[in-house]
Formats: sequence, C-alpha cells, structure tokens
Amino acid sequence: MMEMESKKAANSFTIMNELVLPNDTNIFGNLMGGRLMYWMDIAAGMAAAKHCNAPCMTASVDNISFKNPIKLGNIVHIEAKVSRAFNTSMEIHLKVWGEDTLHQYQYESNEAYLTFVALDPNRKPRPIPQIVPETEEEKRLFEGALRRRQLRLVLGGKMKAQDAEELKALFVE
Amino acid sequence: MMEMESKKAANSFTIMNELVLPNDTNIFGNLMGGRLMYWMDIAAGMAAAKHCNAPCMTASVDNISFKNPIKLGNIVHIEAKVSRAFNTSMEIHLKVWGEDTLHQYQYESNEAYLTFVALDPNRKPRPIPQIVPETEEEKRLFEGALRRRQLRLVLGGKMKAQDAEELKALFVE
Amino acid sequence: MMEMESKKAANSFTIMNELVLPNDTNIFGNLMGGRLMYWMDIAAGMAAAKHCNAPCMTASVDNISFKNPIKLGNIVHIEAKVSRAFNTSMEIHLKVWGEDTLHQYQYESNEAYLTFVALDPNRKPRPIPQIVPETEEEKRLFEGALRRRQLRLVLGGKMKAQDAEELKALFVE
Amino acid sequence: MMEMESKKAANSFTIMNELVLPNDTNIFGNLMGGRLMYWMDIAAGMAAAKHCNAPCMTASVDNISFKNPIKLGNIVHIEAKVSRAFNTSMEIHLKVWGEDTLHQYQYESNEAYLTFVALDPNRKPRPIPQIVPETEEEKRLFEGALRRRQLRLVLGGKMKAQDAEELKALFVE
Amino acid sequence: MMEMESKKAANSFTIMNELVLPNDTNIFGNLMGGRLMYWMDIAAGMAAAKHCNAPCMTASVDNISFKNPIKLGNIVHIEAKVSRAFNTSMEIHLKVWGEDTLHQYQYESNEAYLTFVALDPNRKPRPIPQIVPETEEEKRLFEGALRRRQLRLVLGGKMKAQDAEELKALFVE
Amino acid sequence: MMEMESKKAANSFTIMNELVLPNDTNIFGNLMGGRLMYWMDIAAGMAAAKHCNAPCMTASVDNISFKNPIKLGNIVHIEAKVSRAFNTSMEIHLKVWGEDTLHQYQYESNEAYLTFVALDPNRKPRPIPQIVPETEEEKRLFEGALRRRQLRLVLGGKMKAQDAEELKALFVE
Repeated sequence: MMEMESKKAANSFTIMNELVLPNDTNIFGNLMGGRLMYWMDIAAGMAAAKHCNAPCMTASVDNISFKNPIKLGNIVHIEAKVSRAFNTSMEIHLKVWGEDTLHQYQYESNEAYLTFVALDPNRKPRPIPQIVPETEEEKRLFEGALRRRQLRLVLGGKMKAQDAEELKALFVE
Repeated sequence: MMEMESKKAANSFTIMNELVLPNDTNIFGNLMGGRLMYWMDIAAGMAAAKHCNAPCMTASVDNISFKNPIKLGNIVHIEAKVSRAFNTSMEIHLKVWGEDTLHQYQYESNEAYLTFVALDPNRKPRPIPQIVPETEEEKRLFEGALRRRQLRLVLGGKMKAQDAEELKALFVE
Repeated sequence: MMEMESKKAANSFTIMNELVLPNDTNIFGNLMGGRLMYWMDIAAGMAAAKHCNAPCMTASVDNISFKNPIKLGNIVHIEAKVSRAFNTSMEIHLKVWGEDTLHQYQYESNEAYLTFVALDPNRKPRPIPQIVPETEEEKRLFEGALRRRQLRLVLGGKMKAQDAEELKALFVE
Repeated sequence: MMEMESKKAANSFTIMNELVLPNDTNIFGNLMGGRLMYWMDIAAGMAAAKHCNAPCMTASVDNISFKNPIKLGNIVHIEAKVSRAFNTSMEIHLKVWGEDTLHQYQYESNEAYLTFVALDPNRKPRPIPQIVPETEEEKRLFEGALRRRQLRLVLGGKMKAQDAEELKALFVE
Repeated sequence: MMEMESKKAANSFTIMNELVLPNDTNIFGNLMGGRLMYWMDIAAGMAAAKHCNAPCMTASVDNISFKNPIKLGNIVHIEAKVSRAFNTSMEIHLKVWGEDTLHQYQYESNEAYLTFVALDPNRKPRPIPQIVPETEEEKRLFEGALRRRQLRLVLGGKMKAQDAEELKALFVE
Repeated sequence: MMEMESKKAANSFTIMNELVLPNDTNIFGNLMGGRLMYWMDIAAGMAAAKHCNAPCMTASVDNISFKNPIKLGNIVHIEAKVSRAFNTSMEIHLKVWGEDTLHQYQYESNEAYLTFVALDPNRKPRPIPQIVPETEEEKRLFEGALRRRQLRLVLGGKMKAQDAEELKALFVE
C-alpha cells in the first residue's frame, strides 16, 4: 500500500462558534447537553475530515463532564484538533467554552476526546496519516492518547484491565 | 430536611423511537453521532425527570462506543432508566439500537451512562430519591454504578487514581 | 400471488416520547397542534412499517379532537398500533397524552386513527398482512375499523351515505 | 357583553407557499403527511388570528385524505379561510395543492377543515365575530359547517348520532 | 436555439406567510435578520422557478435595509415577483411586511431585489423568457432593473463606475 | 454621557465553520443562498456583540454576490470582523468560502458587509465604541466604510445621490 505522509496537528484545527437559540435550551434557559454534543460532533468531524481528506464517521466519545451551563443568547466556542492518529482511527481533542458578550465573561464548559474512523469508497476503514505534534500542548495530548485509547478498549470490553499497562501505572504506584 | 422515599428503577423507564430523516445523516446516509447523542440526552433527561420530579440538567456523559451505523429511514430505539441515585445526582443507563423494518433486522448501536443533577427553584442541586433495583439487570447496573462513578471522578480530576478502590481492583488482581 | 401470513397487532406496537421544546409552542407556551400531528404521523408510520415490512405512506387522518393543551417542558407520550389491515391499506390507532413530571400529572391529549398504504418498489400499493387482534381492546378496535372505513369513504366521496350500512345503523335506531 | 361586529370571510384569507426540502420527505422523496399537517395547522392558525384578532389554539382537525404525493423540490400551496364561526370556536377551510414548476403541473393534495378556539387573557374561550359569506363557495362552506360540526360532536362523543339531525338526513333518505 | 416566448410578470407572483416562532427570534423576541433572509430567498426562488420552469440558483442579493423589527407570534408576509429577465439571469422584487393580528397592525419590513440564474441539466446557465410588465408598478420595476444591474456589476467589480451610464446620471446632474 | 473607549477591530473577530447538511441544499445539492445568509447574519451578530458588549440587531445588508456554489458535505467557513463604528451602528465585514476536504480544495463564496445597531435596555439605539484599525486590511476596510455608508443612505432614500460626495468621486473622474 501507498506510504502516507504525516501531517501537522495544526492542519486540522477547526473553530466553531454557535449562538444559543431558544430551541437549544431547557426549562432553565440553559443549553441542553445533547445539543452541545451535536455541535461538538460536527466540529470534531470537520477536524477529522481536514486531517485525512476522506469521509469520516464517529466511532466513540470519551467521558465528558459539563462544568458550567451555557445560557440562552450566549456564544458557544468550540475548538477541535486531531491529537493522534492510529491505524484507521484518530482521536480529536475539543475545548468548549461559553461567552457572555454583554458581561464580557468567558467560562469553561468542557474538554472532550472523540474518536473518528476514515472510510474508503467501500465504507471500510482506511489508513490515516500520522500526526506530527509541534507545540507543548500538542505533544502532551499526543502522549496521553495511548492511555485514553487503552481506557476505551477496556471500557469497550476489547482489552482486559490487567493488560492495560499504560492505565495500570496510574492505579498502582 | 424532609426524608425522601426511595423509588423503583422501573418508574423512570422511558422509551423513545425516532425515524432517521435526511438531515440527521452524513454523506454515507448514516445517522450522525452527534444527532444520536442529542436524542439520547433527551431520553435520559425524561427518565431523570420521571424519577425525581424536578427539573434536571446533564452533568456528564460516560464513554460511548458506536457499534453499528444506523441508516436513513431506519428507526432508532432508545431505552433509558435511572440505574442509581447519589446525593444530588443520578446515573441513567441507556440502550440504543437500530431497526430496519424492511429487512426485519435489529442491530445494536450502543449502551451508555449519563449523569444528571436535579435542581431546586434557586438552581442549586437538590437531594434525589434513592433507587430500589428489582430485576437482575437493575441490580447489576446498581452495583456497577459505584465503579463508574469513581472513574468519572478520576477522569474529572476530582479523585486520585490511587484512592479509587473500586477501580483499582480491576487493574491489580 | 404469494399467500401472506397474518400478524399480531402487538407486533406493530410503537412508543414515542418527545419533550416539548420552545419552538414547538405557540404564544401560550402550549404545543402547537401541527407539531403534535407531525409526531403522530411519524409514530404511526413506524408502526405501519413494523407491521408490513415495506415502505409506507400516509393516506388519511381521521377526525382528531385535542382535549388538553400540552405545555412547554412536558413530555408527549404517543402509542401507536395497527388496528386492522385491509387489502393495501391499514388503520393505525394512536393514543396521545401529556406528562408533567414536576407535578407527577398525566393528562389525555387525544385518540386518533391514521390510514397508511404500503408500496411496492414501483410505488404501487401492495398487499398487507392481515391483523390478528388478541386483547379485548385490540378486538374492539378491529371491529370498529369497518365503520370508520365507511365514514372515510363517505367523507371522501367514494361511497354514498345510503350505502354505508355500518354507519347507517348508528343514525337509524 | 359587548356586541361584536360580523366580519367577511375574505378578511381571514391566508396564502402559504412552502418549498419541499429534503428533511420534509420520506424514503420516496415525497412530503411526509405530518409535515404537511404542520404547515396546514400554521396556515389555519394565521387565518383564525386574522379573523378574531385574538390568540387562537387548534381544537380539532376533520378527516383529511391525501390525494397525491407532493415531491421534493415542489411547491406546497395552502389557502386558508374561516368558513364559519360558532360561539367561541371557528371552522377554517383549507385547500392544499402541489406545484411542479419544471413541468408546469399543478395537482390536488387535499381539502381540510380545522377548528380553532379564541382565548381571552386568562386562557378561557372567548366570543368570536360571526362570518359573513359572500361568494357562492363561501356560502356553500358556511352551510355545510353545521353538518360537519354535528359529525365532530358525534365522533367526539358529545352528541348522540340519533340527535344529529343534519347528519341523519344523509343516511336516511 | 429555440425562440422563447415572453411571459407576464404576474405569472411568477408568489405569496408566502410565515409565523415567527421562538427559534426565529433574538434576545429581544424579534425575528432575526438572517432568518428573514432565509425565507425571502425561498420566496424569490419559487417566483423564479415559476417564471422560467427550470431549476434556479441565487446569484446575488441587493442592499436590504430592515425598517421595523418583526415580533414573536407575528406574521411575516412576503410577496415576490420577477421584475425583469436578462439573458440567463432574472431580478426578483420582494415586498416584506409584518402583521400583528392582535392589534390589527401591519408594518413595513423591507423591499428587496434578488437575482437568480436558471440552469440547464448540465448546471450551466440557460436562457430565460423575457418579462412583459403590465401594471404601472411592474413597468417602473422593469425600468429600474437596468440601473440596479449596473450597480451590481460595479459593486461586483465587473464594470467600471465610469462606464455605468445609467448610474452616472444619478450622481452627475 | 460617559466617554467610551475605542476598541481594536481584532477584538470582534469571529470564526464560524458549518457543515452543509441535506436540508440546507437545493435540488442540485448546493447550499441555498438563504441558508448561507442565515449563518452570515449570526456570525456578524456575534462579532457585533463582541465589539459593543450590548444586544445588537441587524439593520441592513449590503449587496452580496455569490461566486461559487457550496456543496453538500462541504464546510462553510465564515470570518466576521467589525470594520467601522458610526454613532449607534457598526459595519461588519464578512469573508465566506467553501472547503471540500476530500479534494483539499478551498473556493471563494462571497465577501459581504452587514450593518448592526446596538440597543439599550429600552430598545433604543445606543452609542458604540469606535474602531481602531491596525492591519493594512483593517485600515482599507475602515476607509471604504464611509463610501459604503453613503451608498446605503442613497439606496435607502435617506440621502440624495448628488450629495454623496464619496460616491460621486467614483462616477465622475
């Protein structure tokens, strides 16, 4: 098979800004978690497509914890960037925060990791260019991706917890 | 404070069926992950509201792995039930599968755990009735909830991995 | 033509739960009738597809009377089940109610009958399996379907009122 | 109570044209019945509001039979006009057809009757101005409204079939 | 090429009425400008398709100035009509106003000109029937179309301001 | 009245990336002009709100010419920045292009100018901080704003063409 060139993490960087409209909110006038995940999935999908120049599909979502509610009329700011590529899948790192322009106040919502696979024209997984991390943060995310991957495999029942060497180190000091 | 009565897990049981329409799909005609999470969040929110009879808000989503794509025109079937209540939060367990009525074929999509908090009229977290599990599955989910909660706390940086006794047992045999 | 096996009414049973969001409501914060009919049509369509395992299309809607408004933030609960099959069309019976989880209060919205036709790959009507009613309610709905069908034919100008024997009995005691 | 002036039927006349977009269609690329009813309800609501200058709410929908499917990319044309006012409710008559501009072809979809109630600031039904029919068609619709109303009452269980004098005449020659 | 028959401006006349729903509004409960332009584009597209009986695509939008905000629950009334056809493009004139049915109050929103092109099956621009203006207003709009077209060409950098004879007359008296 | 500090143009810079979904497209699978204007209006509104930290409302849209169709599944990239503030209104400059990630191909859609007004709590126009342009492009846009404003006033009938000195220079060389 054709050798693929590695690509910089920064190449996939995607910014999305959305305005919270009435139908996005619950009874408190706060953005519903599901609506936010909908936008995050689209932002991650755009970053994935920029990285591998192929159609992509969500494979999994890591644990997400919502820190602050985002209010009606506020802006949702999402940043997505591929943190590491594996054979046919890639991990996308997202940072999400809210902005209240009237009060000039920005607040954290969450940080998340989604995994996407790239597909060939027969809808089979296809190889993905490797990631070259450049900044300190990109390198830290690149390193941590192995540990998060093991956790995904363990949680998905595809790896035994005892074999997850990267994870194990965390629990047994 | 007033003592709260415990409630059966089955009380919160919620079924949602959605038809996959064109705008819910990606370039392959498959349901987008984010759209599915939007529905799952609403199903979980209805189950949470049935359990605690108070307004609820998504606090976190556990790792979700999507097993099979759900196709345009197929039915998405979501079942949600509260698996365990903590002080002011509760874990909701979801089962999601697709149905192709033409081929009489049902297929698994994913199993997920979302955490919701109940709020009082001042938007502060409020106590939640405890869960009484009855069936074998409800009991198994009830038991596993502690371990999943520790994982959430560790991943959220609110508990040290070494202190997560429930989790540790998995890694150190 | 191939003989078709009859199927149980219960096979087609479909439950849909929807949350009333701001854009679904009128100036009073009540669910708009049209939005509710949109959901009812989808629920009925899913029940029809489950029964006949073929693509289906709405043919008609019987008189619907909305008893109680459903409020913003409440849950709409829709149950749909095929009540009787004719040659190439089938009648679907729906029960719709609202639920205010905060006040633990459920209230009736309406009961409705929709008719769907099944289509073959050339988009022509195709035969539908007959219904086997089992419960008392299913039998009652099965019986009444003939009378409702005559009413549809009369209202649609396809049968003279004087020939509608089933209906006539109601008016001439 | 204040005497209300009668108003002409034509005052409430409302035209709505909608373009059928991908998400409005089923697997055949035809407009879904429920989506059409959603638009019809809004068109009827606008006609009702024009007639009585008060907030209005859908009370019931009469039997609707869909004659021809409306295709993706075609135009839906809806005309709505109040046909008769009762004390606190009014009947709205709708004509719906499709238009394929490429083939310069117009085709009937359905004719429908919706009933709306007007509400006072306490959300109680309030009196509605009477209708003055002017054209032949308006007069015919005005006359038929009594019979349709009896049918609604009989179908809604609020009137015995034997007491529905207007209807009875149809069945007993 | 085949000679095309001219068509009357009135043939393309299209009316659209939309109800302003919560998700269409900004923080003031007023219709967002972008949502209104979305509807205007659809209304203009329907008028264009009626005129040339071919698929059409938006080419440009002239300066629009929004005079009065349109409120939640009010009706948006849009009228569109082709004002003049050029070789492969046509100008559509729109009038937009709001209606508050409760207060029986109509108010102007804006007047706009959109330009559409008709496409052949290979998605290349195709000739469009000429317009025959009949009323005084149609004639005035037909005349003004040349000047507006020059302005579009100048603003789009396709014509030098000094060559725009029709426009020049306005500035140099 | 309180003196307002000037703010840098860059402060208001807003990026929006949207994925073109089926319901956003016309019969050719191209993004509809109206849907794009809907997104552009929201992007401009976010930039306006960042600049003046007050609720804002669309006042007008300048001539927009769509250069290339944006296709289903492609990404719409919108950049918005306040180019100049007047007393109570401000001009926002937008650049819009499409991206086909599969073919690694970016293409221009349009460049646009929208005008927004800031409102005080009584919904009256309120003063806006002046803009400090820094880059060459910001300075060029700042300069051109006066001419575009005169054109808006002339087209809106609020200024005579002969009095528009900035514009006149273009036509009379």
